[in-house]
Amino acid sequence: MRNSSRSNVDPFIVMDVMEAARKAEEAGRRIIHMEVGQPGTGAPKGALEALEKRLRSDALGYTVALGLPALRSRIARLYGDWYGVDLNPERVIITPGSSGGFLLAFTALFDSGDRVGIGAPGYPSYRQILRALGLVPVDLPTAPENRLQPVPADFAGMDLAGLMVASPANPTGTMLDRSAMGALIEATQAQGASFISDEIYHGLEYEAKAVTALKLTDDCYVINSFSKYFSMTGWRIGWMVVPEDQVRVVERIAQNMFICAPHASQIAALAAMDCDAELQANLAVYKANRKLMLEGLPKAGFTRIAPPDGAFYIYADVSDLTDDSRAFAAEILDKAGVAVTPGLDFDPVRGARTLRFSYARATEDIEEGMARLAKFMAGRAQFTD
Amino acid sequence: MRNSSRSNVDPFIVMDVMEAARKAEEAGRRIIHMEVGQPGTGAPKGALEALEKRLRSDALGYTVALGLPALRSRIARLYGDWYGVDLNPERVIITPGSSGGFLLAFTALFDSGDRVGIGAPGYPSYRQILRALGLVPVDLPTAPENRLQPVPADFAGMDLAGLMVASPANPTGTMLDRSAMGALIEATQAQGASFISDEIYHGLEYEAKAVTALKLTDDCYVINSFSKYFSMTGWRIGWMVVPEDQVRVVERIAQNMFICAPHASQIAALAAMDCDAELQANLAVYKANRKLMLEGLPKAGFTRIAPPDGAFYIYADVSDLTDDSRAFAAEILDKAGVAVTPGLDFDPVRGARTLRFSYARATEDIEEGMARLAKFMAGRAQFTD
Repeated sequence: MRNSSRSNVDPFIVMDVMEAARKAEEAGRRIIHMEVGQPGTGAPKGALEALEKRLRSDALGYTVALGLPALRSRIARLYGDWYGVDLNPERVIITPGSSGGFLLAFTALFDSGDRVGIGAPGYPSYRQILRALGLVPVDLPTAPENRLQPVPADFAGMDLAGLMVASPANPTGTMLDRSAMGALIEATQAQGASFISDEIYHGLEYEAKAVTALKLTDDCYVINSFSKYFSMTGWRIGWMVVPEDQVRVVERIAQNMFICAPHASQIAALAAMDCDAELQANLAVYKANRKLMLEGLPKAGFTRIAPPDGAFYIYADVSDLTDDSRAFAAEILDKAGVAVTPGLDFDPVRGARTLRFSYARATEDIEEGMARLAKFMAGRAQFTD
Repeated sequence: MRNSSRSNVDPFIVMDVMEAARKAEEAGRRIIHMEVGQPGTGAPKGALEALEKRLRSDALGYTVALGLPALRSRIARLYGDWYGVDLNPERVIITPGSSGGFLLAFTALFDSGDRVGIGAPGYPSYRQILRALGLVPVDLPTAPENRLQPVPADFAGMDLAGLMVASPANPTGTMLDRSAMGALIEATQAQGASFISDEIYHGLEYEAKAVTALKLTDDCYVINSFSKYFSMTGWRIGWMVVPEDQVRVVERIAQNMFICAPHASQIAALAAMDCDAELQANLAVYKANRKLMLEGLPKAGFTRIAPPDGAFYIYADVSDLTDDSRAFAAEILDKAGVAVTPGLDFDPVRGARTLRFSYARATEDIEEGMARLAKFMAGRAQFTD
């Protein structure tokens, strides 16, 4: 069977790391997982309880395409609580994870061949989904002095149909403050392009609260998810906020592409929004982990790291250590038993000289990982000296 | 904000019917629902039990993109049990409903502008998803003498990149027998086009067992779901079987578009496959409903119906009664309190003269519905005589 050219999607290089880690574990070795981009915790207990109560009393058939009205209202309330934004619940659309949000947003806004700007480094699936839809991702190489976030000069005169930003970002954890976000919105709208803000890591911030694009403009798409702060990755449930005049367009696409987001996940997600104590306890773990990493990584020799404002990642420039991050990650796994992600998944060009460390798992793992990395790097320094 | 032209998706006309039905119910009226395309039953009890056991013991994070290996194996075994087909579990890909399967299949196989043949009448989302992906749906008007299924002559010399068939079909319930399916596969492959078989209603057959395309060729995509026979619509879980050399391509698209199908739904689905007694009891209800419809509809005056081989639909040619199925459906709802679907959603051209009746709900509803339709039609005949 003949394949389309749009199906020619890059493999995730981290998959090789994960497979090698799995094999090492099968052989009896203990591996520290700093490659995974998801919480080690499950959905909050209150979410499971709410679902358990409904499992037997409700057929859990299709919901309406936009999602359960109670969940849409509750999410609108979150914008009041978190940001002081008064949001019309009609603008909230429940999606099958943020992945579903990307598919809906890109389809609603862009036609075949349209060019969409994305920061490099960035979440690999932006690029791949755009390509799979017959659109053209345009990598915008970002600068350390801009916190590895795009700035208007990066796409001046580029004739983009849209710009996609993420704050806090994956893989860097860096954020856009209000003025940086505002400048991007203004420059995007001046080009007549659509502004899409991926806010999936909101709630996981350590120094300052993340800024939602909705604080600055109503003329944007905001994508979010229950996967990270709410710790519900496998439930595939997220949301999108769109301008009022976009709701019907997105609704029709969602009816056809997804019918609805998983009903059980919608019930669990609604209850998860009232589980602050448990979620704040998860956040405290990330906070402790982040502290360990910020002390341990430079000591081990990973000194050039992006400002880790949020999420649960640290992105390190390792150009003083290697120009082959893939081989370097394999070496770290082999010699230190620590799985990390080569930057190539996030930045096909400069990622050969970067690594991403995730600290989403248990604190004892991070401690052990830091000790192993320090030992490995000390041995390596000795060897190369 | 400017929308893409690909986002210009047709609304579902049935939504107007559903909204009118909801309003009538709100006003205290009892409405019989023959417009809904989903079982009234929930997931089988064994599926809920299995999930309840795992909710507290498993974090239910992301699964691998292709789905839980145990579920893929169990589905492969189903092909042995149902069809005597020996299927390599590696070829089974778990999807977020059949909707997810369509997105994956169309993306893996077709490039922007490619033409894909679909039977008319047919499931409306085929057309809309193809358009949303920048592809060109080509309606193939089908003939009553071909059971409203396409035949090779319908697309001879049409330069299609693919053909999508469904058996049993929505909205007609008609099936392709082995020779009809074989002829379509041969003609499709002779054009160098890809063959996709939507088998979502398999298991819901009343006269003969449905034929899977996999019995005839390995060189095809087969799409299926837990929504219908397994009664798990809101769980958004389905599967696809692809040729061995397609697995890696689809896996990469799935990783990016969905990450994975909902984990909880995968666990429930696996257990649902061992709930035959309950599922056969559901089937017995459909069987009784179908019998009532096949007796009641002609008596009421709906005499021209497609051979209802499977699924839970009856598609009626009402051209002797109206040339405006939308107005006619509104009249039936208003005067008889029975919600039915105008054919326009399934066939934008000829659907103005057809209606779809669903018999997926409780038998007492079907009895009441038949009585109401008979009375309504008798009154109408009197009025127009």
